[in-house]
Amino acid sequence: MEERMETLIREMKNGDQRSLARLISCVEDRQAGWKDVMKSIYPGIGKACVLGITGSPGAGKSTLAGEIARRFLDRGLSLGIIAVDPSSPYSGGALLGDRLRMRDISTNPGVFIRSMATRGALGGLCQAARDVMRIMDAAGKDVVLIETVGVGQDEIEVVSASDYVVLVTFPGQGDGIQAIKAGVMEIADLFVVNKCDRDGADVMASEISAMLELSSEAGQERPPVMMTSAFTQEGIDDLCGVLSEFINQKKARGKPQRDHVRNEVLGLLEREMVGMLRERIMENGKLESALDAILEGKGDPYSAAEELMARVHLVRSRPGERKEDTRG
Amino acid sequence: MEERMETLIREMKNGDQRSLARLISCVEDRQAGWKDVMKSIYPGIGKACVLGITGSPGAGKSTLAGEIARRFLDRGLSLGIIAVDPSSPYSGGALLGDRLRMRDISTNPGVFIRSMATRGALGGLCQAARDVMRIMDAAGKDVVLIETVGVGQDEIEVVSASDYVVLVTFPGQGDGIQAIKAGVMEIADLFVVNKCDRDGADVMASEISAMLELSSEAGQERPPVMMTSAFTQEGIDDLCGVLSEFINQKKARGKPQRDHVRNEVLGLLEREMVGMLRERIMENGKLESALDAILEGKGDPYSAAEELMARVHLVRSRPGERKEDTRG
Repeated sequence: MEERMETLIREMKNGDQRSLARLISCVEDRQAGWKDVMKSIYPGIGKACVLGITGSPGAGKSTLAGEIARRFLDRGLSLGIIAVDPSSPYSGGALLGDRLRMRDISTNPGVFIRSMATRGALGGLCQAARDVMRIMDAAGKDVVLIETVGVGQDEIEVVSASDYVVLVTFPGQGDGIQAIKAGVMEIADLFVVNKCDRDGADVMASEISAMLELSSEAGQERPPVMMTSAFTQEGIDDLCGVLSEFINQKKARGKPQRDHVRNEVLGLLEREMVGMLRERIMENGKLESALDAILEGKGDPYSAAEELMARVHLVRSRPGERKEDTRG
Repeated sequence: MEERMETLIREMKNGDQRSLARLISCVEDRQAGWKDVMKSIYPGIGKACVLGITGSPGAGKSTLAGEIARRFLDRGLSLGIIAVDPSSPYSGGALLGDRLRMRDISTNPGVFIRSMATRGALGGLCQAARDVMRIMDAAGKDVVLIETVGVGQDEIEVVSASDYVVLVTFPGQGDGIQAIKAGVMEIADLFVVNKCDRDGADVMASEISAMLELSSEAGQERPPVMMTSAFTQEGIDDLCGVLSEFINQKKARGKPQRDHVRNEVLGLLEREMVGMLRERIMENGKLESALDAILEGKGDPYSAAEELMARVHLVRSRPGERKEDTRG
């Protein structure tokens, strides 16, 4: 590994926030040497507890995350916060709003806040978020909070990479629990009805409990349903109590699951393959002539893909043997 | 192509809804012969106008889609409706709700309704949705309505494959326009403030207009902002008027864009490659031994992917030549 990277990692481990920021950028942008950084920090990670916070737009996730963060900081925990923002040229306003909410904690030296755009993440959003979590872990953060809008499949995958998932809902969220149809319910470890100072919070909490009862099997533990309000501060201490308890349990807990690691390895592999494939296919003019034909009404995308596919083959090499085409 | 498929396509073109349903299933599940079906119908498509309807959960998209559909049917147009549902074991309720809202139109022979799950779409959600749109187009539908929850990247891509995108918002949607930070704003051709019988609809509409004014360049046409309510029926006729106008214009319009076709061909190609790759990598026990090592703390996913990658190479074959490894 480059000396520069080694220095950055050493400084990061000593608590230097600027080195942390630079390493995250290096890995997120897939700059030269990013993989060496990840390989180097990997053996030391697993100490941080990753809490996912997700829910519909407008549920008050950022404010709630800020309240949780403040309490953890008061207890002397160090924190990393990742805000996954669907990227939009219009999002300036929203980002600004989120940052204002976090303002009073963002100057605390125990906290490091990072926004990630959902669009254009070079290594895929889920992998990029996982990499950033790991870097924060390696930097010695006790807790990593990751906040996403939990409606898209990508965002759900991101949050399901965390150790504990909090699903934030609020009264007046359109059709109530019907609106929570996003495939996030089954990954939630805890449900929060936020903005509980508003009308309808009790009804919403009962509906969620009823649904959890209906869908869970006998003897199975059901996720708790809690009510919070950043406005009245109701319930936030209780929520942090439950989260702290989990953080302490997690310290005693364990290893990543085999299936998760398999998916990650395959994902990393596929990204590289697809990159190589695109290069190869673009190289000669075949793709462009196929496009010409389609646009002139003389072809279709399905046949074109098939024909291009026939020109590129996967070959497995065996060490010490001559490479051969395995198509037989 | 198999005779069975040819028969199904002929019957579908004659208006048989059962054949249409079977062809959609065949293509969605990537059953044998799916590609022949797509190749065969491709030359005849492009007549239907595809309208995308998107927005946050609870915005009332299904109800609004139902109202639009009813008016189009009254004018003698035939309709396909695709509802993209984030799939969840909990979604039974939500699906049922949506279906109830569509009940009064779903028995009309001029309409065909199809739900698609976001999770586990074999060809990728975006491609699968595009394929289903094309089949409905080939079946002679005048209009295809596609309804998605527009917060995730996947869902945004689906809806951006349509000819015209309606973004549905509603008053009381959390932080107002701040909540619409999903990368959908820049693909919207028309903004609707739905549930406009509620308080705050005027404010929301003004905010959206102000934001559009701020972000658009001088002389650039700005998307219209309309207000609707399925409850009072306000504004829905006006909305349908604008949509009809677009449908008529589109009939005079044209071809797919080169960039879109390029992305589609590359996407189809990548799916096939990744499928082949997974097979190859799974074949021998290398992947599993790499996983063993990682779980024992003797490796990391990044190195494992790299090592597996070194065992599979892409080779380009030139017709009439011996296949050779291009790594040089």
